[in-house]
Amino acid sequence: MTIKAAIVGYGNLGQAVEHLINAFDDFELFGIFSRRDTLDTDAAIYPVADAARYKDEIDVLFLCVGSATDIPEQAAGFAEHFTTVDTYDNHSKVATHYAEMDEVARANDNVSVISTGWDPGLFSMNRVLGLSLFPDPVQNTFWGKGLSQGHSDAVRQVSGVQRGVQYTIPAQSAIDQARAGNGQGLSKTASHERIVYIVADESEQDRIRDEIVTMPDYFEPYDTTVHFVSDEEFERNHQGAPHGGYVITTSELQGHNASVEFSLKLESNPNFTAAAMVAFGRAAARLQQQGNSGAYTVLEVPPYLLSQQSHQEMMETGLV
Amino acid sequence: MTIKAAIVGYGNLGQAVEHLINAFDDFELFGIFSRRDTLDTDAAIYPVADAARYKDEIDVLFLCVGSATDIPEQAAGFAEHFTTVDTYDNHSKVATHYAEMDEVARANDNVSVISTGWDPGLFSMNRVLGLSLFPDPVQNTFWGKGLSQGHSDAVRQVSGVQRGVQYTIPAQSAIDQARAGNGQGLSKTASHERIVYIVADESEQDRIRDEIVTMPDYFEPYDTTVHFVSDEEFERNHQGAPHGGYVITTSELQGHNASVEFSLKLESNPNFTAAAMVAFGRAAARLQQQGNSGAYTVLEVPPYLLSQQSHQEMMETGLV
Repeated sequence: MTIKAAIVGYGNLGQAVEHLINAFDDFELFGIFSRRDTLDTDAAIYPVADAARYKDEIDVLFLCVGSATDIPEQAAGFAEHFTTVDTYDNHSKVATHYAEMDEVARANDNVSVISTGWDPGLFSMNRVLGLSLFPDPVQNTFWGKGLSQGHSDAVRQVSGVQRGVQYTIPAQSAIDQARAGNGQGLSKTASHERIVYIVADESEQDRIRDEIVTMPDYFEPYDTTVHFVSDEEFERNHQGAPHGGYVITTSELQGHNASVEFSLKLESNPNFTAAAMVAFGRAAARLQQQGNSGAYTVLEVPPYLLSQQSHQEMMETGLV
Repeated sequence: MTIKAAIVGYGNLGQAVEHLINAFDDFELFGIFSRRDTLDTDAAIYPVADAARYKDEIDVLFLCVGSATDIPEQAAGFAEHFTTVDTYDNHSKVATHYAEMDEVARANDNVSVISTGWDPGLFSMNRVLGLSLFPDPVQNTFWGKGLSQGHSDAVRQVSGVQRGVQYTIPAQSAIDQARAGNGQGLSKTASHERIVYIVADESEQDRIRDEIVTMPDYFEPYDTTVHFVSDEEFERNHQGAPHGGYVITTSELQGHNASVEFSLKLESNPNFTAAAMVAFGRAAARLQQQGNSGAYTVLEVPPYLLSQQSHQEMMETGLV
């Protein structure tokens, strides 16, 4: 059965979801809902205000709108008419978002899979999996090497900075410590470094470096290194959006160490977030077809629903 | 709610499960079913032939009997009376085992979670997860460094071998190739090495090495290294049962590489297999309490059911 999908929002995430939906055999793209009339796409474009009109033609709606304000304001409205999937990433408000989506989706026989992507998302699954295995687990999550949008914005606010970008990098010593079972108490500050690349006039570089490394909260508690590069080098090497990370869980079991690790290395953060979102979108459509309704976190989704293959096929081909 | 658990079989796996059940707050050990009257345990011991008599006092039964013949012969009989969990590891017969267990468990309102452990088990989940993310994934599973029981038995059959053990080791070059996205077509033979440690008289060592490295199927197609060690060194360094491995999935997404990796490093294979089994035993008991019945592979279990924590608690504490 083909899953008819539509997308709200056409930024980096929406564009990457569109590409994946076209690449997978089991999806069919209905179109894109946008406030704009023209988008650089071959897909059909519909005014977002008319979305509800098409509810019977769409199995799952990908909410590719901003996590900070758009999701809290708009997501429940879409869940009234559609089975949805989102990448809401405010960890501290997941429970609130879940409760709101659950009420609306349940009342309308829709399914809403929330907070997909990789963190929250695949990392959430692996945190829970790792912690569930052991009576006394030690667990650490590391992020990077990754471009941090918030920290890049912060350095660009410093006077004299022409271009600037910030990467968060997990300290190798901290990763090694976690793998060896000694990660207990490792702080986020001690286990991550910040590397900044800046384009600026030479006369201003010392002051700029000082302002960055002493910036409270953002940089001051971290080991921060500022590199000044030419405009050409910045253009060549710092246009991507790499990211990644590690979830490492260890425990002693009757005197024997066990270490479980899940890691990602991504050249493009939005492309991979989209890949995880599309897999959970597939699961959302299937959950709804199975007669379920309400909100689901990634922890509530049986993994076989993420796959194009049937469960029987997976058992018969040795994947289990 | 406390989960009342019992164990059938008291080998390495059963003993490790017993230890974990006693260590987790949410489990309570009813006892061990055995054909023997006395076991080296403080737990209650019951004759396995009387097991059905205690069905109402047990929420989940851990089938810690041999995978090769005991599970196919006995598992369905237990599923008639109990919610069960097993570590059946014959990948090519998982579908058959599932069908048998499903019929009996469903008819008796029990749940049977089959083929838990790490491979099948955690590796199965991560194979399906990795493959589900990408339209064109490349995936490799590597095993080791690990003690192989079958290959250790084979070297001990060679005349003149006093003590012997075999470790399977994934070739670092093959792991690097997979991580770089070039794992397509990597054979199991090309990506694993075999290391053998033998105690034997010096006069016989050349012949023994020859017989081992030329042994068809077991060693001949592999890069095999045979080390001869003293009885003391063997005693000191080769009594453990280490194991581990990697599931590596890569893909290109619109020209950007993505790499997803799940790995384990275990000093004791049976202890960790038990840890995975106990987590899925917790899920089996809860699935049954929720009103479900029938067989489940690990792919059908929503991950939150593996945890001692409630789903609400996981959302509120930032695990999602």
